[in-house]
Amino acid sequence: MSPERYQKIRAILSKRQPSLTVCLEQVHKPHNVSAVVRSCDAVGIHKVHAVWDDKTKGLRGGTAMGSQNWVYVENHDSIEDAIGHLKNQKMQVLVTHLSDSAVDFRDVDYSKPTAIILGQEKHGATQEAIDLADQEIVIPMVGMVQSLNVSVAAALVLYEAQRQRTIAGMYDVQQLAESDCQKTLFEGGYP
Amino acid sequence: MSPERYQKIRAILSKRQPSLTVCLEQVHKPHNVSAVVRSCDAVGIHKVHAVWDDKTKGLRGGTAMGSQNWVYVENHDSIEDAIGHLKNQKMQVLVTHLSDSAVDFRDVDYSKPTAIILGQEKHGATQEAIDLADQEIVIPMVGMVQSLNVSVAAALVLYEAQRQRTIAGMYDVQQLAESDCQKTLFEGGYP
Ligand SMILES: C[S@@+](CC[C@H](N)C(=O)[O-])C[C@H]1O[C@@H](n2cnc3c(N)ncnc32)[C@H](O)[C@@H]1O
Ligand SMILES: C[S@@+](CC[C@H](N)C(=O)[O-])C[C@H]1O[C@@H](n2cnc3c(N)ncnc32)[C@H](O)[C@@H]1O
Repeated sequence: MSPERYQKIRAILSKRQPSLTVCLEQVHKPHNVSAVVRSCDAVGIHKVHAVWDDKTKGLRGGTAMGSQNWVYVENHDSIEDAIGHLKNQKMQVLVTHLSDSAVDFRDVDYSKPTAIILGQEKHGATQEAIDLADQEIVIPMVGMVQSLNVSVAAALVLYEAQRQRTIAGMYDVQQLAESDCQKTLFEGGYP
Repeated sequence: MSPERYQKIRAILSKRQPSLTVCLEQVHKPHNVSAVVRSCDAVGIHKVHAVWDDKTKGLRGGTAMGSQNWVYVENHDSIEDAIGHLKNQKMQVLVTHLSDSAVDFRDVDYSKPTAIILGQEKHGATQEAIDLADQEIVIPMVGMVQSLNVSVAAALVLYEAQRQRTIAGMYDVQQLAESDCQKTLFEGGYP
């Protein structure tokens, strides 16, 4: 690996935010999944979580760190498994949901370890996800449309987290364990 | 029209922001165009501007206020025409562009009359758009990807504008001329 490339990758890894993640719940349009992962990479997410629906499940097993981005994808068999896993890591689990009990997405402290659940394009997050999550969050809208595109909603929440974490200095100090950096350098370091 | 529907439409129109708009420069994937217009509607944009590329030009003539959203689309023959039109309306013209001369998108005053130019998926905004615009803006990224999805970038800028305009009280007082409200009520008021 060239010294320039090594420096570039180290710089990216030094800004990774292992305490921030998203969980895709049956999001199924490939262009949406790809736009979400792109935004995740851009705000420094190291790993995303996903529960696929029956139709797409088989297809997604191989999705992982691609050449376009360096975001790992961890698949779970059910939303219950996924949320259990996230809560075990002491993350607050937020579910994006258009309901009256949801709080404004900007009124949340994203400097805490946080996982954001994104719902399916047509039906949104499942009742199970809503019940298991710690908090529902909503992006305010003042127009005729009922909802935003899921990748748009994801990015808005993630960039609010990025804004808060920048102020909190969380991009100034390496957050990722050195062993995880080494793993990524090893796996992705080819030219 | 039922009194409930009338009230709903009036409430939406009372929050419309005629001094905020976007200009799509040859954005050509339908799912991106539709996601952008959805976000525009959600932050209260009344009319968007567009310059289509040669391939899609013919197709888009009829795009206008749809059943899903209430955003008007005004087509222009060239980006020069579009920007001229926007500047005539005393708008600051911002072009989203990944360059060193761009300022952080959050360091702009969106309470001013503002138009945001969005570039084509593959090649970004044209040099002509960049030259004619008042200011380049960029959304910071700390990962491996080179750029965000265009509908994601649009929404991030628009919701920053929404945030600033909310603080400035611009959603609390009707901004749209009463004649434009009447026009929309007339055209869109059918049940
Ligand atoms: C198209 S929406 C689903 C709409 C579905 N009819 C519903 O009511 O939940 C797909 C996903 O985008 C996200 N989303 C869209 N608009 C949102 C908003 N305004 N606030 C929070 N999340 C939103 C959520 O993750 C949602 O599950
Ligand atoms: C996929 S990008 C185009 C990438 C192109 N290779 C370039 O360098 O401009 C498509 C459009 O999304 C918007 N965009 C994407 N990422 C952006 C960012 N980080 N800052 C500002 N605009 C962005 C711009 O409107 C851009 O023209």
